[in-house]
Amino acid sequence: MVHHQFAALGDATRLAIVERLARGPTPAGDLVAPSAMSLPAVLKHLRVLEEAGLVTTVKRGRVRECRLRPDALVAVAEWTARQQALWSARLDALGTLLEEQ
Amino acid sequence: MVHHQFAALGDATRLAIVERLARGPTPAGDLVAPSAMSLPAVLKHLRVLEEAGLVTTVKRGRVRECRLRPDALVAVAEWTARQQALWSARLDALGTLLEEQ
Repeated sequence: MVHHQFAALGDATRLAIVERLARGPTPAGDLVAPSAMSLPAVLKHLRVLEEAGLVTTVKRGRVRECRLRPDALVAVAEWTARQQALWSARLDALGTLLEEQ
Repeated sequence: MVHHQFAALGDATRLAIVERLARGPTPAGDLVAPSAMSLPAVLKHLRVLEEAGLVTTVKRGRVRECRLRPDALVAVAEWTARQQALWSARLDALGTLLEEQ
């Protein structure tokens, strides 16, 4: 359900993590500095993003590499576009109605 | 900040309200039946959507009319498209690199 993805993105730290990962895979440790949080706190946010299907993390030796899933934001983009299309179809229909009167 | 909008959309009931309002303005009372919630509970969800700038409500007599704001989902759509563009630019660059090698 897309509301799980919205909920995962509804936090400034997690949004910043996704913005960083959109630029390329990143070790979890590198996500700590810009957030001014502890590593455990960052790992907790990563877990929320993983559970929402937005991010995958893989442990390689001592480094946990994080990457955005290629299909990560597709459901969000599709849901948003659908609502906007419905809404503007309605505005178009209203406009036509006004012209006719 | 767009994470407030994501947080507001991170709930199944609020998402259903936005889907309904995308089809046209609706009295708050009409949002109660499909949600199987009480009117006060629905009004609380509407307040969260209003605070996030997604919905406006206007009281006319005994009816509270709810409508989606025309610019409601623009920030969400733009943020999402930007991350997807960054991510696919990266994949394209990787593809070119692999071809060259």
